[in-house]
Amino acid sequence: MLAQKYVDMLERKSVIRELSEYAVARGKEIGYENVFDYTLGNPSVPVPESYNNSIIRLIGEKSAMDLHGYSQSLGIREVRDAVARSLNKRFGMDYSLDHIFMTSGAAGAIAHAVRLVTVPGDEVLTFAPYFPEYGPYVNQTGAVLKIVPPNTEDFQINFEAFESMINEKTMAVLINTPNNPSGIVYSTATVKRLADILREKSNEFGHIIYLISDEPYREIVFTGVDAPFVAKYYDATITCYSFSKSLSVPGDRIGYLAVNPACPDAAKMIVMCGQISRGIGHNCPSAIIQWAVSENLYVTSDISVYETNMNILYDALTSLGFKVVKPGGTFYIFPKALEDDAVAFCNKAKEYDFIGVPADSFGAPGYFRLAYCIETEKVKRSVEALERFVKENY
Amino acid sequence: MLAQKYVDMLERKSVIRELSEYAVARGKEIGYENVFDYTLGNPSVPVPESYNNSIIRLIGEKSAMDLHGYSQSLGIREVRDAVARSLNKRFGMDYSLDHIFMTSGAAGAIAHAVRLVTVPGDEVLTFAPYFPEYGPYVNQTGAVLKIVPPNTEDFQINFEAFESMINEKTMAVLINTPNNPSGIVYSTATVKRLADILREKSNEFGHIIYLISDEPYREIVFTGVDAPFVAKYYDATITCYSFSKSLSVPGDRIGYLAVNPACPDAAKMIVMCGQISRGIGHNCPSAIIQWAVSENLYVTSDISVYETNMNILYDALTSLGFKVVKPGGTFYIFPKALEDDAVAFCNKAKEYDFIGVPADSFGAPGYFRLAYCIETEKVKRSVEALERFVKENY
Repeated sequence: MLAQKYVDMLERKSVIRELSEYAVARGKEIGYENVFDYTLGNPSVPVPESYNNSIIRLIGEKSAMDLHGYSQSLGIREVRDAVARSLNKRFGMDYSLDHIFMTSGAAGAIAHAVRLVTVPGDEVLTFAPYFPEYGPYVNQTGAVLKIVPPNTEDFQINFEAFESMINEKTMAVLINTPNNPSGIVYSTATVKRLADILREKSNEFGHIIYLISDEPYREIVFTGVDAPFVAKYYDATITCYSFSKSLSVPGDRIGYLAVNPACPDAAKMIVMCGQISRGIGHNCPSAIIQWAVSENLYVTSDISVYETNMNILYDALTSLGFKVVKPGGTFYIFPKALEDDAVAFCNKAKEYDFIGVPADSFGAPGYFRLAYCIETEKVKRSVEALERFVKENY
Repeated sequence: MLAQKYVDMLERKSVIRELSEYAVARGKEIGYENVFDYTLGNPSVPVPESYNNSIIRLIGEKSAMDLHGYSQSLGIREVRDAVARSLNKRFGMDYSLDHIFMTSGAAGAIAHAVRLVTVPGDEVLTFAPYFPEYGPYVNQTGAVLKIVPPNTEDFQINFEAFESMINEKTMAVLINTPNNPSGIVYSTATVKRLADILREKSNEFGHIIYLISDEPYREIVFTGVDAPFVAKYYDATITCYSFSKSLSVPGDRIGYLAVNPACPDAAKMIVMCGQISRGIGHNCPSAIIQWAVSENLYVTSDISVYETNMNILYDALTSLGFKVVKPGGTFYIFPKALEDDAVAFCNKAKEYDFIGVPADSFGAPGYFRLAYCIETEKVKRSVEALERFVKENY
């Protein structure tokens, strides 16, 4: 019989996807350049030339077996070693290859992390606003995702709500900083306070509460923003990284899971990932892609365009009277809609071909998300549409 | 807390992996060219030049977004369409892109197939000798893998045992033809009889029993062997394919799942796969690799070497008095050991640097597997070692 839980999921269409499909369809009517499509977090700046050059050179240089043969089940040793060294160099950590497991992007890393530290029925806490895919990522393992309501003042953590929700069944806390959808970066003070609570509660409950830190936007941090490396502040941190955003390669499906060397059983957890892979059909990212990222660990796409876009939108939104927290990174901004119902608000904005995503599915109703990973010139033109929309409606 | 089931798995080391590690270590002592390492099914013939050329050309021709951007969650439409057409052309089927889901190899395809048609507690039957990874592939979903004992006469299906084991909880039957480890190809008669039983039992139990056909060795079939396309004979067939063996690209992690268009809800099953992916962290194989295989659907590596190797080994084994069924495909051969305990037998053979894998973990104790995806010259030299070993011990 077909598994009913997946049949049921077909009914619940993703708002992001629906709006994105609308934007593309509308583009066919009036020209896509005239649709201010802020729906999808698909990086717009091209992949660095060095990345494509790496692939071409690797094909010329490596043996067929090295390039196309099975990679070790935890990832290619040289690649894991290079990743560990890059983390140590950049963040003063002490990783070795034994703490690194190569994955198919951050989604693959989270799939392993959750299975590593929970069994069905355990709870995983995350903080709104949150990436809605966390729902299926966690719940399909049998663990249960619980959402801590947002701190709408600054989109740091709502600690009061967090402390009231954490309990004996909490086996992991899942954070995402820089954050999709808010664009906010957790400050050192936030991460320290979170770590303090986790240590205290781990003691109280007699088991480690793991911190799963989802960091695909780690490299996209704006000028002067305090962006701590999370694992530095909490031993039992499992870092989930993706190269999708920093190198503009989401289609390549490459990232890694890193267990803080200070975490008890850190190296054992990595070999356990190899066992988890067998059941979820993962078996390593493509070898050629592993090699290519290992040669581009200190490179990013020209991500400066995202800060430019953010500033244009932030200035426009604030001058139009929106309540909005200034993003510290990513390519998202997360203003409060000008009426309580963000769905109604976004529907009206659609009439001006200004397409944002209402944030009900992000756990913050009343807000909307703009993914400004689009051309700066288009961002500028979109401001005119936004102005007209606001003036004619509010 | 760390999930105990994965901790437990660490205790059970894979025999194949242990022997393979032994062979590599021994190679460091006496030169790897002197170790007759028949442990691993890692294709030895190089990837076709056209495949590497495709990657290089795609990098020059495609936009960064097409090549490195997110691919659709079911796989790139053009690629799925090309796969469907190739199946139709070669096997007279009627697939469209709506019946194809791109996966990370056959492991990824099976991970989706099992979740598609079972819920925890359901049974999946497979036939010994079988690929031992089927254990974790199936059992980690919560379904239960049951092994039908082998038909040691010809390694076709032991139908008597099968009919005694199939029951109301059987939701799927998982087959692998051409077979790892036996090298046997199921004949048209076998597939027809299997299909007849599945239709009859589906009727009797009032639910469809799906046939999951794992076909990574489909292209490696030897001269004159009857190798039916399984889905042709049973509507509810889910074909799991990998390009790993035909193109010698196991490290690229690419394959597909195809649902027979005649299967009820075929297209719905494919979109369900997209939902399953969200929970297991799959989210498509690498886009660039998808494009590359779509340009190489009618190409294979020079797989003729495997038939050459098989004939050398088959002749040697039979002339030395081994009981062995002649393989119809793959790069495996599966003789009966010369004593009851195949582990003891393989240990003695190791003294002659002839390394095969005892078949206890394949569900056929007393047999051993030789993976002859190695150089023909080495196969020839290995025959001398085998002869010495047999003469001095049996």
